[in-house]
Amino acid sequence: MSSLGYVSPQTMHFAQPLQLQSGASLRDYMLMYETYGTLNADKSNAVLVCHALNASHHVAGVYEGQPKSQGWWDNMVGPGKPLDTDKFFVIGINNLGSCFGSTGPMHTNPATGKPYGAAFPVVTVEDWVAAQARLADVLGITQFAAVMGGSLGGMQALAWSIMYPERLRHCIVIASTAKLSAQNIAFNDVARQAILSDPDYHGGDFYEHGVVPKNGLRVARMVGHITYLSDDDMAEKFGRRLRDAGTGAAAGSCAEGEGEYKFGFGVDFEIESYLRYQGDKFSEYFDANTYLLITKALDYFDPARAHGGDLAKTLAATRAKFFLASFTTDWRFSPERSQEIVQALISNRRQVTYAEIDAPHGHDAFLLDDSRYMNMVRAYYGQVWDEIGGAQ
Amino acid sequence: MSSLGYVSPQTMHFAQPLQLQSGASLRDYMLMYETYGTLNADKSNAVLVCHALNASHHVAGVYEGQPKSQGWWDNMVGPGKPLDTDKFFVIGINNLGSCFGSTGPMHTNPATGKPYGAAFPVVTVEDWVAAQARLADVLGITQFAAVMGGSLGGMQALAWSIMYPERLRHCIVIASTAKLSAQNIAFNDVARQAILSDPDYHGGDFYEHGVVPKNGLRVARMVGHITYLSDDDMAEKFGRRLRDAGTGAAAGSCAEGEGEYKFGFGVDFEIESYLRYQGDKFSEYFDANTYLLITKALDYFDPARAHGGDLAKTLAATRAKFFLASFTTDWRFSPERSQEIVQALISNRRQVTYAEIDAPHGHDAFLLDDSRYMNMVRAYYGQVWDEIGGAQ
Repeated sequence: MSSLGYVSPQTMHFAQPLQLQSGASLRDYMLMYETYGTLNADKSNAVLVCHALNASHHVAGVYEGQPKSQGWWDNMVGPGKPLDTDKFFVIGINNLGSCFGSTGPMHTNPATGKPYGAAFPVVTVEDWVAAQARLADVLGITQFAAVMGGSLGGMQALAWSIMYPERLRHCIVIASTAKLSAQNIAFNDVARQAILSDPDYHGGDFYEHGVVPKNGLRVARMVGHITYLSDDDMAEKFGRRLRDAGTGAAAGSCAEGEGEYKFGFGVDFEIESYLRYQGDKFSEYFDANTYLLITKALDYFDPARAHGGDLAKTLAATRAKFFLASFTTDWRFSPERSQEIVQALISNRRQVTYAEIDAPHGHDAFLLDDSRYMNMVRAYYGQVWDEIGGAQ
Repeated sequence: MSSLGYVSPQTMHFAQPLQLQSGASLRDYMLMYETYGTLNADKSNAVLVCHALNASHHVAGVYEGQPKSQGWWDNMVGPGKPLDTDKFFVIGINNLGSCFGSTGPMHTNPATGKPYGAAFPVVTVEDWVAAQARLADVLGITQFAAVMGGSLGGMQALAWSIMYPERLRHCIVIASTAKLSAQNIAFNDVARQAILSDPDYHGGDFYEHGVVPKNGLRVARMVGHITYLSDDDMAEKFGRRLRDAGTGAAAGSCAEGEGEYKFGFGVDFEIESYLRYQGDKFSEYFDANTYLLITKALDYFDPARAHGGDLAKTLAATRAKFFLASFTTDWRFSPERSQEIVQALISNRRQVTYAEIDAPHGHDAFLLDDSRYMNMVRAYYGQVWDEIGGAQ
């Protein structure tokens, strides 16, 4: 397997205002993206990869001088990988409202000359897709070989199939759903309340106070993270193991049943240590306003709303062929959620391939190596490749 | 069905220090309790009801002049009810560290003359049981007809059966577990972090600052509450319904698919409104230090730890007969957790009755009316009654 070599992000500026679902508009904006592989002459081999909550345009490869900067789906995308960049021209794109380069709350609001902060308009999955389509326009891609994403990324792929039916041959939706459940929304709102009630949030204008609502972000990430892992996986990885083997041991862990309780509110269990670490790390790089925006985009996504809740009616607009995958232990977006989409597509006589992968890792499984999963995606892209005449 | 009439709490002071599992001790302490029904001459009809996270000694009945002050298990305990106070002498007791009357963080620390705050020692389920046993001593109850509890209350009943095998004829454990899972601990730690990182927590000494860490308590309660309800129940009760039907509608709710998104971070969905309301209400009456203490008691409970994780070995000490019940949609303490206890008891040839109730209401089901559940408890207490010669 060869390597992608070093990759570099690019930016594209859009001077034309973007009308948003909320009624607001962005006067102008910038999108950050990366590409891997080579666009063929008839521009038929392009694949758009949409990102989930905390990811970015940096899907694959590493940056020069940063050997640990692998893209978030580097196991999936690259030369010889399931989405093979020796064949396909792959685009990773950062969404509006993000904190990784595309126009977002940290950028200057042209109306005030100050950072947008909480004044950045609430953006939806459909708004993101509309912005992505403009980038495709500029690149001259009239039809993607595929649009692909996992979780929130899968929602974007699904929205593409509804909003721009002719602009994608294949729609690849992994570990996703056509709408959040009450429980999903509830967890998102807990996260939002943690951020909004952090005094360092300052109504979204924390940039000018020189602080960051770290405590809120930390709690938000901790609760989110619990929903990404399966109960069994957590039991296996952490169980009830204590962090320290004895009173003197500052580092290291011990087997279940060993060690002593500390009888305080510091770290006792490995799982606490792990989650707090995840929360701390996240609070150091992620923007609080972005977190609020993205959770709202998740909550609002519900394309069937326009058709009285009838998903089959909604998906009648689609023209793509579909590949969906779900994971048995994913309790955030369980297999039933993917099955709903599959049923609605089948009732429209769409061509659908559906894989339900028996994997222990919960929602996170979509990002992890699992040979059955990877082989299915690889095989599917083989068909896509044949279909666009790539084998000729 | 007659009524309990008005009930009143009582207090009992203990001047003898209580040695705690942590190594610390309480110099002296007070327990708050209520009793319903009449203790018979041979003191054989006493039933101890242990409370869960946010409850108290006020199990049943109402207080004079407070018609809405029903006890937390009033549907279970009373004249003619499943735990019939015409037959049994029922004791509800508030645990140490609580904020409802028994000695806790809000009370004066004799060592400093100021409220304990975070200096209140971390107490365990076993510490609570030891304190409860002293109250039984004073009341002259050498053997309870039954010790009963749901959730964390069930853990106390289980601890009774291990610590004082001869002091209870029956052990009734509802919707409980012999130990928390990593996921359970994770949710508890999210709640604790929300409280500990609230600037109004002031290291536990918020009393003297005249504030309460409301935001932290609110988030803690919201995340806890999600785990008490089932996904399906939430879907049925709230689904994706929006709070307000139109821009002008301040109150009232609308059917799923109706109404408009607000494109802000206020309340859009019913479920958000419900959870925030629960969080607000909780933050107004519950003490933050108590919440921390109780979640730690939950995390630490693991009686099998003393036997290398072998629950069967642990339960070999028991002498009681057991009744366990679990609820199919309870994902906090699922039926599998009760089954583990049942198996460990059976391997010790203990007499066990186990009911797995098909109920939609998640963990909260143990507090709700369900005729199959209630009838099973009623029938079981019928046997207990016969056994103590009550029918003679």
